[in-house]
Amino acid sequence: MFLKQGVPMGKILLAHGSGGKLTHELIKEVFHKRFSNPVLAEYTDSAILDYKEPLAFTTDSFVVNPLFFPGGDIGTLAVCGTINDLTMVGAEAQYLALSMIIEEGTDISLIERIATSIASVARINKVRVVTGDTKVVEKGACDKVFINTSGVGVLVAKKKPSVKNIRCGDKILLTGCLANHGLAVLSARQGLGLKGEIKSDCAALQGLLLPLLKKTDAVRFLRDPTRGGAATTLNEVAESTGLALNIREDALPIASKVRAATELFGIDPLYIANEGIALLIVAQESEPEALRFLRQHPLGRRACSIGTVSKEPKSKVILETSLGTKRIVEMLSHDMLPRIC
Amino acid sequence: MFLKQGVPMGKILLAHGSGGKLTHELIKEVFHKRFSNPVLAEYTDSAILDYKEPLAFTTDSFVVNPLFFPGGDIGTLAVCGTINDLTMVGAEAQYLALSMIIEEGTDISLIERIATSIASVARINKVRVVTGDTKVVEKGACDKVFINTSGVGVLVAKKKPSVKNIRCGDKILLTGCLANHGLAVLSARQGLGLKGEIKSDCAALQGLLLPLLKKTDAVRFLRDPTRGGAATTLNEVAESTGLALNIREDALPIASKVRAATELFGIDPLYIANEGIALLIVAQESEPEALRFLRQHPLGRRACSIGTVSKEPKSKVILETSLGTKRIVEMLSHDMLPRIC
Repeated sequence: MFLKQGVPMGKILLAHGSGGKLTHELIKEVFHKRFSNPVLAEYTDSAILDYKEPLAFTTDSFVVNPLFFPGGDIGTLAVCGTINDLTMVGAEAQYLALSMIIEEGTDISLIERIATSIASVARINKVRVVTGDTKVVEKGACDKVFINTSGVGVLVAKKKPSVKNIRCGDKILLTGCLANHGLAVLSARQGLGLKGEIKSDCAALQGLLLPLLKKTDAVRFLRDPTRGGAATTLNEVAESTGLALNIREDALPIASKVRAATELFGIDPLYIANEGIALLIVAQESEPEALRFLRQHPLGRRACSIGTVSKEPKSKVILETSLGTKRIVEMLSHDMLPRIC
Repeated sequence: MFLKQGVPMGKILLAHGSGGKLTHELIKEVFHKRFSNPVLAEYTDSAILDYKEPLAFTTDSFVVNPLFFPGGDIGTLAVCGTINDLTMVGAEAQYLALSMIIEEGTDISLIERIATSIASVARINKVRVVTGDTKVVEKGACDKVFINTSGVGVLVAKKKPSVKNIRCGDKILLTGCLANHGLAVLSARQGLGLKGEIKSDCAALQGLLLPLLKKTDAVRFLRDPTRGGAATTLNEVAESTGLALNIREDALPIASKVRAATELFGIDPLYIANEGIALLIVAQESEPEALRFLRQHPLGRRACSIGTVSKEPKSKVILETSLGTKRIVEMLSHDMLPRIC
C-alpha cells in the first residue's frame, strides 16, 4: 500500500488532503475497507438515511492526548462518546459520520490503527459509518489527529429522559466507578507509572441503558459525566432544576487504585472525566428495580445509588463527607485536565 | 462579557474547553445567543429531529487558512459547504451540528465573528444549528480554529442525482466561474496583492439547484468541485462510469482577473478549489432548458455548457485546447493548495 513511485511510504502528506489521487487512496484503503456498508459505498457527499421516526442528532470532536491510552484510543473514544450522546436522550445509535483532521507527517499506520478501532467499536455496537471527511494540515498545524464523529439515532425510550422530569425525592445513581478514564489518560500522558495500571473504562452504554429506557419510564434524567466530571453534571442539573442534589462521599463508587492515585495527586475524582459510566436520576420507588436491572449487565455491575434530590438549598450540589460534614460541590471553573476526550 | 474576576478578558483559555463554568459561558454567550432555536434550547446531548422522510446526512471539517478571506470566512465556508454537500444529493438542508476546535489564546472576539457568520448564513438558508461541541486545545496544538459541521436534510429531488445515471451524449454544465474561491484564499494567505481583489464566491447552492431538481429529472449528476477542483470531479466521474468526459478549454467560464492571476502564477484553474459553483451532467435534450433555468438565478448567471460525455477514450477526461489540440486532464496527484476549505 502507498508504494507508488515518488510517494514516501507510510506518511501522511499534504496531498492526502488535497482531494486528489492520494486522498482517494487514503479513503479507500484506510477507511472504506474497514467501514464497508451499502450507504457508504454510494460515495455521495451525504449519506441517505431512510427513516420514518423521530431522530436524535449529535456531534463531538475528540482531541485526546495521547491518542492511545490504557483501555482505549481516540477512535474508541469517538465512537463510544457519540453513541453515548445518543443513548443519553434515549436514542439507539444507527449512523455515524466520521471526520478526521490529520497532521502532515503522521504515520499512516497510526491512522489505520485508529480506523480499525473505530470499525471494531462500530461493529460491536451495530452502528455504521455512512459518510466522512478527511483533512490534512501542515506539520505543526494540529497535534497529530483530531476526530469528529456525528451520529444519528432513532428514539426508542418509552419516555425521553429530561432534566424537566426531575422531582424532589428522586434518587441519583451511577452505573459504574468514577474517574477511570480521566486517570488512565492522565497517567498515559504524564508517564506517571502508577502501580497497577489504571485502564480507561471507555465504553458505549446503549447495551446497558436502552433496555431499561425501553422497559420503564422510571429514568427521569440521564447523562454521561464526561468533561468536568460528575461534579459538573450534578451542578448542571441543580442549576437547571433549582433543586438540591445531595450526594454521600461514602457512596461514591471509586476503584481502590483510582482512589489511591487521586489521593496521591490531590485530585478530586468528582471532577475527573468519565467515558464509560452514566449518571441516572430515577423516581424514588424505582431505585431498587433500576439498580437490579443495571447490575445484570457487565457494564453495570458496580451500579449504585449515590444520593437524593431535595428542595433546599436551591440549585446546589451538597456532598456529605465521610466525617458527616457537608460541603458545596462547585462547578469546575478551571482547566482540570484538558485534552481528555 | 467574560469580565469575571480572575479570568483574562477576551482570550480563549483551556478552561473554556474543560466542560465547566467557562465552557458553559462560552456556549451560552457566543453560540446559543446566535443560533437560538427550540431544538438547540433543549441543551441535550443530541438534537431530536422529527422526520417522516428519507434523510441525507453529511459531515465536513474546515481548516481553511487564513480564517478570513475576501468574500467569506471559515464560518460561511462551513455552513455553505455542508449545505452544498446535501444539495448535491438532492436534499434540502434542515439541521446543522457545529463542532469547533479552538486554540488556547484565541481572541474570543474572533470566535464571535465566526459564530456570527455561521448564524447569518444559516438564517439566510433556513437551516438551524441544533447541536454542537466545543473543544479547546493548548497553544500550538491547532492552528487557531477548526470547524466541523455535520448536516441533515430531507430528500426533495424528483430523482436522486447519481453517477449511475450518466449516459453517452450527456452534457456537462458549470453553474458559474471556476477558481474564484481557491484564488481568493491563496491571495489572502500569501498577500499577493492581486490587482482588483479576487473574492471567494463561497455560497450555498440549494436556492439555485433544488428548484431544478424538484421540477425535472434531467439532472443526471451533480457535484460541487471543491478540493482538487473541477479536474478532480471530472476524473471521479470518468473513473466511476468508464466513460470519457470531453471539455472545451474555450468554454470554461473563468473571470478575466482570475484568468490573469492563474496565468501569472502558472496554476491550472481546473485544479483550483471552488466553493460557490456546481458541476451538472444533464441529458442532452435538457441542456437548453437547464441553462435557461440556472441563468435566472443570481448564482447561475454565468451557467454554461463546457462539454459532452462520450464512450471513448474510456475513463478519461479530455480537454480540447483553444488551439484545437487535445490533452488528457489527470486527477490531481500532489498538494496543489492545502487548507483551502
